[in-house]
Amino acid sequence: MRNIKMCLAYDGTNYHGFQSQKGTGLKTVQEEIEKAVLKLTGEHRNIYGSGRTDAGVHAAGQTVNFFSNTKIPQERIPLAMNSVLPRDIVVLNAFDMPEDFHARYSAKEKTYCYTIYNERHLSPFWRLYSYHVPVMLDKDKMSAAAGRFIGEHNFKAFCAQNDNDKDYTRIIYDLIIEKDGPILSFTITGNGFLYNMVRIITGTLLEIGQGKKQPEDVSRILLSSQRKEAGATLPPQGLCLIRVTY
Amino acid sequence: MRNIKMCLAYDGTNYHGFQSQKGTGLKTVQEEIEKAVLKLTGEHRNIYGSGRTDAGVHAAGQTVNFFSNTKIPQERIPLAMNSVLPRDIVVLNAFDMPEDFHARYSAKEKTYCYTIYNERHLSPFWRLYSYHVPVMLDKDKMSAAAGRFIGEHNFKAFCAQNDNDKDYTRIIYDLIIEKDGPILSFTITGNGFLYNMVRIITGTLLEIGQGKKQPEDVSRILLSSQRKEAGATLPPQGLCLIRVTY
Repeated sequence: MRNIKMCLAYDGTNYHGFQSQKGTGLKTVQEEIEKAVLKLTGEHRNIYGSGRTDAGVHAAGQTVNFFSNTKIPQERIPLAMNSVLPRDIVVLNAFDMPEDFHARYSAKEKTYCYTIYNERHLSPFWRLYSYHVPVMLDKDKMSAAAGRFIGEHNFKAFCAQNDNDKDYTRIIYDLIIEKDGPILSFTITGNGFLYNMVRIITGTLLEIGQGKKQPEDVSRILLSSQRKEAGATLPPQGLCLIRVTY
Repeated sequence: MRNIKMCLAYDGTNYHGFQSQKGTGLKTVQEEIEKAVLKLTGEHRNIYGSGRTDAGVHAAGQTVNFFSNTKIPQERIPLAMNSVLPRDIVVLNAFDMPEDFHARYSAKEKTYCYTIYNERHLSPFWRLYSYHVPVMLDKDKMSAAAGRFIGEHNFKAFCAQNDNDKDYTRIIYDLIIEKDGPILSFTITGNGFLYNMVRIITGTLLEIGQGKKQPEDVSRILLSSQRKEAGATLPPQGLCLIRVTY
């Protein structure tokens, strides 16, 4: 049986997240892909994602795998899938992988981007793809604070309280803040992320950019392991899963 | 009575164009703005646009004016309007103008941008804001052809056949083609545009980019005044009214 890896982009606006919620009647990305695979191959297959994305979160490079006996050559899979998928989910490429490849367990790094629209009036073209912050932010202070997240830390303070992960240790390799006109982007790469971790880190950086917290506070908050010490969880539509590295 | 000019951005996806179509039940941008002015001022006012945009066409800088006795200072109008407008229509700025100012008749120049997504698979984030062309296009040929549109010409061949304008003469000041990754943009500035003119010009340039027509053909098509000689009318979602100059 083939083990097929696919890289996907999707606009999460109209979905209740990536993960299947069978029986709820809620539309999810995973179920749309499973339906497309069924149409194309006649096979009922589980799609394994590199991880969940929440309702309203987007992906430019989500990765999934599934097992199949289809004869469609790998290079034809994207076009075939895209012909049956809704237009807000797109397969970018597909590759045959060894049988032990798993989109989630084989992942080495993930990169997310959180986008802030930092201008007085929110552009209608960014309303579904950014979080609007009308007040000016101090990018230098945020960049100074960003450096303090890099490395191996216990991220319990930057994790939704309902996350029952026992091990809160993660490594952040990079956290880059860039500004291009009104678009302020926070691109963060790590070996894995706790639930809501990117949205809480960015929420904390925003408070630093507004002078409500100082860059030095990041180290103190990390050590505290207290969720209440960190900033707010930013809304989902600013978040995009950019890339999964294997 | 005040004569207030407003600059607007809107995502045209969910509208049947700019111009009011009263009695049809179809949502239009003009009616949304008239409703917002009514809510804010209690006044039933006509909104005058710089011109129509078709169903699905976007604007980053549409300009309108309306007469009002409102006491709201001009600098507070954008925030006040945006608090009552749907989120896909945004007032960017507002200014008091002399009483003879008219968004349409006072306009000197307009700039439109047509966006092509030129890559094998259409990104889900661009599906509502571009036209997808999966085959590679020869940008040099298109740029050579673009130069032939510049200047004063009779544009009857580049105008929808149901346009009853008697004078088909327009001046194109500039037509710039830029490529940024998969995004190919055609930015065109002129003293005015006939119905569908930008979409037909871009459609003709696309045929040149695919080698179906040659750059020299542009001059011949202009002289022919025959709509059938030009290329196809591209779909609306790639078109955006960028700016109106007074």
